[in-house]
Amino acid sequence: MSTVQPSAADVLARVAATLESRKPENGGDPDKSYTAKLFHKGDDAILKKIGEEATETVMAAKDARAAGLSPEATGKVVYEVADLWFHSMVLLAKFGLTPADVINELARREGMSGLEEKASRKE
Amino acid sequence: MSTVQPSAADVLARVAATLESRKPENGGDPDKSYTAKLFHKGDDAILKKIGEEATETVMAAKDARAAGLSPEATGKVVYEVADLWFHSMVLLAKFGLTPADVINELARREGMSGLEEKASRKE
Amino acid sequence: MSTVQPSAADVLARVAATLESRKPENGGDPDKSYTAKLFHKGDDAILKKIGEEATETVMAAKDARAAGLSPEATGKVVYEVADLWFHSMVLLAKFGLTPADVINELARREGMSGLEEKASRKE
Amino acid sequence: MSTVQPSAADVLARVAATLESRKPENGGDPDKSYTAKLFHKGDDAILKKIGEEATETVMAAKDARAAGLSPEATGKVVYEVADLWFHSMVLLAKFGLTPADVINELARREGMSGLEEKASRKE
Repeated sequence: MSTVQPSAADVLARVAATLESRKPENGGDPDKSYTAKLFHKGDDAILKKIGEEATETVMAAKDARAAGLSPEATGKVVYEVADLWFHSMVLLAKFGLTPADVINELARREGMSGLEEKASRKE
Repeated sequence: MSTVQPSAADVLARVAATLESRKPENGGDPDKSYTAKLFHKGDDAILKKIGEEATETVMAAKDARAAGLSPEATGKVVYEVADLWFHSMVLLAKFGLTPADVINELARREGMSGLEEKASRKE
Repeated sequence: MSTVQPSAADVLARVAATLESRKPENGGDPDKSYTAKLFHKGDDAILKKIGEEATETVMAAKDARAAGLSPEATGKVVYEVADLWFHSMVLLAKFGLTPADVINELARREGMSGLEEKASRKE
Repeated sequence: MSTVQPSAADVLARVAATLESRKPENGGDPDKSYTAKLFHKGDDAILKKIGEEATETVMAAKDARAAGLSPEATGKVVYEVADLWFHSMVLLAKFGLTPADVINELARREGMSGLEEKASRKE
């Protein structure tokens, strides 16, 4: 790898490709790979992780605030959000979807009417 | 916008820039912007949304499976994951962090030891 | 009400009876009652509240620990757990179930094999 | 045990007493008891379980609806709500609180202003 920072598109696409390779039908081995094991266990195991990682993100954020947003504590927030996004991508892969679909949805909201309005419709 | 698909890096950076502009100190108006209102309400309001969007992702996934993964139903999953990532980015912004930090963390796991092993340490 | 403290059974049964009376088919009015409105909105609105109240319980617990378990802060934990149990009871009512079913399940675990072993099977 | 159904107060008080006995300071052994292990791991492990059990309740409810509320499927909902309440009680015990505190809070809402109004203040 060069010193050039990898683009987000590259990273997400690479994660998606790795996830794809862990599917049972692509030879993923539940005994060797954490993700292959998750795919093997099925939807509920993946969804449970999403609930769990969301909770861990909330706890890390509470800890970070209590620690005065120290670098170590905010690093833990980044770590937990990465876990949350990672497990979201496992779910997407399980359902034949990709992070690019999510990025496109975010782009659509930006382009069409602003993230603000889109999000506010949900309230 | 040209017909060229925006890169994930561009989209996430653009969302992050928009979020930044919604902060009270940057002139974000809670009466006009959903995100400015969230920033104004504070940490707990943002964290509550993360818990809520995680739950909605779980429900959309359950519905999608029951609907035989129809395009409409999987589209709802993409929509909810986009909401979950969006509110994660609101949290990151609140704490002075960016989606690039999360992407770098994901890249680090890929590069250093494989996502698999990294994730498995969490189990 | 006498000065005698109401038993848990009485309270839970009373809450369940109140919930029952808020159902649309029993004349619950979505414009006048929060619970009638939840029943009217349907399963997803109730489930979303359960995810939300669980998140709020987690936040209150984090706050209580940071506050050195002050009475005010632990009171907030009790408040949020009460909200979580209340919305669980709304879900039970929606599905034709009662808090007594939950109590019986807890009793069964105590009686049969100890809570410990029962719970550990879930790990 | 006689054939008389145990009262909710009895059951919750008994669970609370069992939990108390699993605390490290009361001789609970993390190697032998699931709850003692949870107490030993600390707040975050307990809170993570609450997030997890809330997610499992949501999934069980979705499954129950898809299964036409069959007895087996609604039994799973009861099971998951029991798990959610059980882990709430572990949290309460960790913070020196009891299920009776939660029951009193629910009674207070019933008595004072109706559950409806109390709950609606939270919206």
